[in-house]
Amino acid sequence: MRTLRVIGIGPGDPRQVTVQAIEAMNGVDAFLVLDKSSDRKNPAVKQSLVGIRREIVDHYVEGGAARFVEVDDPPRDRDPADYEAEVRRWHLARAERIERALLDETGDDGVAGILVWGDPALYDSTLRIVDDIRARGILDLAVEVIPGVTSASALTAAHRILANRIGEPIHVTTGRRLPDTPPGADSNQIVMLDADCTFRRTAAPTDQIWWGAYLGTPDEILIAGTVGEVGDEIARVREEARARIGWIMDIYLVRTADSA
Amino acid sequence: MRTLRVIGIGPGDPRQVTVQAIEAMNGVDAFLVLDKSSDRKNPAVKQSLVGIRREIVDHYVEGGAARFVEVDDPPRDRDPADYEAEVRRWHLARAERIERALLDETGDDGVAGILVWGDPALYDSTLRIVDDIRARGILDLAVEVIPGVTSASALTAAHRILANRIGEPIHVTTGRRLPDTPPGADSNQIVMLDADCTFRRTAAPTDQIWWGAYLGTPDEILIAGTVGEVGDEIARVREEARARIGWIMDIYLVRTADSA
Repeated sequence: MRTLRVIGIGPGDPRQVTVQAIEAMNGVDAFLVLDKSSDRKNPAVKQSLVGIRREIVDHYVEGGAARFVEVDDPPRDRDPADYEAEVRRWHLARAERIERALLDETGDDGVAGILVWGDPALYDSTLRIVDDIRARGILDLAVEVIPGVTSASALTAAHRILANRIGEPIHVTTGRRLPDTPPGADSNQIVMLDADCTFRRTAAPTDQIWWGAYLGTPDEILIAGTVGEVGDEIARVREEARARIGWIMDIYLVRTADSA
Repeated sequence: MRTLRVIGIGPGDPRQVTVQAIEAMNGVDAFLVLDKSSDRKNPAVKQSLVGIRREIVDHYVEGGAARFVEVDDPPRDRDPADYEAEVRRWHLARAERIERALLDETGDDGVAGILVWGDPALYDSTLRIVDDIRARGILDLAVEVIPGVTSASALTAAHRILANRIGEPIHVTTGRRLPDTPPGADSNQIVMLDADCTFRRTAAPTDQIWWGAYLGTPDEILIAGTVGEVGDEIARVREEARARIGWIMDIYLVRTADSA
């Protein structure tokens, strides 16, 4: 049986990789790199994002020379009428390509690896692709999942803060869904995938925000304050950094002034 | 200036410690162990919980023989009229004891370490104690925070699942606050610190649950199914394990049948 290891490698700092992830990397015959079409248009981006993963593997895998296989993403409609249906269709197309790569690149008892930024459970589609491959019923595949440090943990550690006040819940959401958070669930929100700095529409000026980009990398940027004080600054710094570096990965925690 | 390193060590598996945590442990003169009064009553519990931390340090710290200093918790009212006020009072009393230990156990330029289960940002009070020590203004203290793998990530990895359906938010809460989660925020809930299996009161029989205890340790237990199918089983297995082992650390993800 083939084995696929889905390995969380943390948000970017090679030191934030676990011992378990390093052990898992060491048995891998071929690393599949799911190459985003949006990144292919920008060679600098691609080199940077693939480059960090290569560095991590080269640093931790003994004997060096681990094989990297790029699997191109199928085309995707970025503004579909039915968002979820389009995501599902696109995942199935991606599953076919990855199934093909697994058959081509690993032997019957081989081990493939996919390195996931942060943790594989959080806003990553690799495990959905795995389910889609299994549902196709062609490949006999054992799956191992290695948890990683999330970008949320890296954010709070970099700011040296707790995610919540005493006993309060924490709501983890996306920029797209942030406006839908019901009152009572919004006291501490960790927001990912927000290209629009949506907090400027949803948060009060007195709410606190802790923002971070490129966490754990030499480009790391941290800004904290009230939304009224630093909200516009975050949007400006974010746009400047994205233009300068070619891509951005950022996350923030926004906390209401009053406790829940 | 003294340095305090607050080091997340993951939920229990020594292999789920990061390279950064190992590096941080290696410079520590004395590890402070915040010894819970509830654990002191039960020597088996204390030995087990302190023991796992000692094993991690002995395994990863070169030269061995790192010093462990136990700092007893002050007494605490477990059923106070004002929950938050009592927690604050108790944190201040704890801060005084830890400040004393820092002064006694490390030199003026010394480095102390506190090992935190999981990640220091999530339902842990160490960083609040640090704020309280700083507010007292007696100790000049540099603080470093090292993120760790959360028990939430260990849970989802053990079950090989994602924390959410496509695009959905994730609500992280406690057993105490679970009944307060508003509709619209309850599609995917990760629940910690729930001695009462509160999901039996809040979830529908058709909701899915993924439960785990002692994650990453030889005692790990995993149960998954609908609340109707496995809810009572989880409560029974949890109580049996707690009685047998003397303590329990568990966590679960509960997901509504309908997407948000």
